Amino acid sequence: MNILIVHAHPEAQSFCTAMKDLAVDTLQQSGHAVQVSDLYAMNWNPVASAADFQQRSNPDYLVYALEQRHAHGQQALADDIASELDKLLWADLVIFNFPLFWCSVPAILKGWIDRVLVSGVCYGGVRFYDRGGLAGKRALLSFTLGGQAHMFADEAAVHGDWEPMLRPLQRGTLAYAGFSVLPPFPAYHVPYISQQAREEILEQYRDTLQHLDEQAPLNFPSLADFDRHLHPLAKTEQVPA
Amino acid sequence: MNILIVHAHPEAQSFCTAMKDLAVDTLQQSGHAVQVSDLYAMNWNPVASAADFQQRSNPDYLVYALEQRHAHGQQALADDIASELDKLLWADLVIFNFPLFWCSVPAILKGWIDRVLVSGVCYGGVRFYDRGGLAGKRALLSFTLGGQAHMFADEAAVHGDWEPMLRPLQRGTLAYAGFSVLPPFPAYHVPYISQQAREEILEQYRDTLQHLDEQAPLNFPSLADFDRHLHPLAKTEQVPA
Repeated sequence: MNILIVHAHPEAQSFCTAMKDLAVDTLQQSGHAVQVSDLYAMNWNPVASAADFQQRSNPDYLVYALEQRHAHGQQALADDIASELDKLLWADLVIFNFPLFWCSVPAILKGWIDRVLVSGVCYGGVRFYDRGGLAGKRALLSFTLGGQAHMFADEAAVHGDWEPMLRPLQRGTLAYAGFSVLPPFPAYHVPYISQQAREEILEQYRDTLQHLDEQAPLNFPSLADFDRHLHPLAKTEQVPA
Repeated sequence: MNILIVHAHPEAQSFCTAMKDLAVDTLQQSGHAVQVSDLYAMNWNPVASAADFQQRSNPDYLVYALEQRHAHGQQALADDIASELDKLLWADLVIFNFPLFWCSVPAILKGWIDRVLVSGVCYGGVRFYDRGGLAGKRALLSFTLGGQAHMFADEAAVHGDWEPMLRPLQRGTLAYAGFSVLPPFPAYHVPYISQQAREEILEQYRDTLQHLDEQAPLNFPSLADFDRHLHPLAKTEQVPA
């Protein structure tokens, strides 16, 4: 398998970085090809702007997604975007490895999503969810956080369940673009736990990475269950899978 | 009321920018004091990093939230952060005005959240949700999107309901920091609609802004319903509000 790890942590000695390093070693030892986009080390620019296009279909009024589509067709995407898009299209699996900031990705990683998931390639028209441009690829969120497991155990927990909290990322982004999304790997309470507890998390992560094929992807909508205006079909109208 | 509008759109002529301009006019005409942080115009830096602190409690290992807390105490936050934090603390209401990118805020706005919602001021320890540092302030998400209302109408809709899709922002960020969160204002299908339909949305937005006090905030957890380890209390143990 070809595996891309998109990593975003501001501290090179962090536990989150150790998870990235462990993933590289473990996956290479399993015979996979691995590339890493270390966004802080790359000084990645997260700001989607007119500067992302060397040529514009409409130089006077920026509609970002339309210019993505145009620039991709003209091979006029900014070099940093084109290079990341190549890695994305090469990959069979993409691992997003990050510290949870405000129940989401750090801004530098949000900007990778905003700029690299290019319209016309990764999605566009009615090409989304199971018809998304990245269908056939898998994705995994792997992240560190201060909170504990019971705070996200279910909807009665103080922060509710992971599914809604991660919905914009796992459903609104990854599944939307066609990825099969593997169950997330949250590394809990990292700033507060012992070295031994950290090593146990790393062992669990290694084990997860060595058994990726045994994990069933999460469930997301299929466009076969919706009409062409994207209204839900009655069950009897649904096209069999 | 003091009102801060945090605006993030890469096109100054956009409909989203027109919503921001309308909000400034409408709110000033109602007698409110308004400040705007136009993140693209300010060339806002969204990347949380060690450069955000003029002084460090631990110069050898960056724990971002701990350094936020330390730097705030020492008045050693980077100038751009300190300036935005002043505006935030001045405001009774904060409006986040943006185009929905991947069911969330654009990276430049995520980086305002990451850097300006400073630990030790906006939250910290068990000061979150109804005990959050920004309790007493209100917040409103006001955003444009390509999708249509029926695509987010309820959990059977193709993208599900807004509540889970916006949960990391409305609950994991705004409510967590103590804000009372007003119902969101989504401006649907903006790239595809007529000038008249756009003007109708602006009228609806004006009306919303003129009647903010009539809107009940959304419901979020109260820490009185959880024990000191943040396990849910049985209903009989809950502290009456």
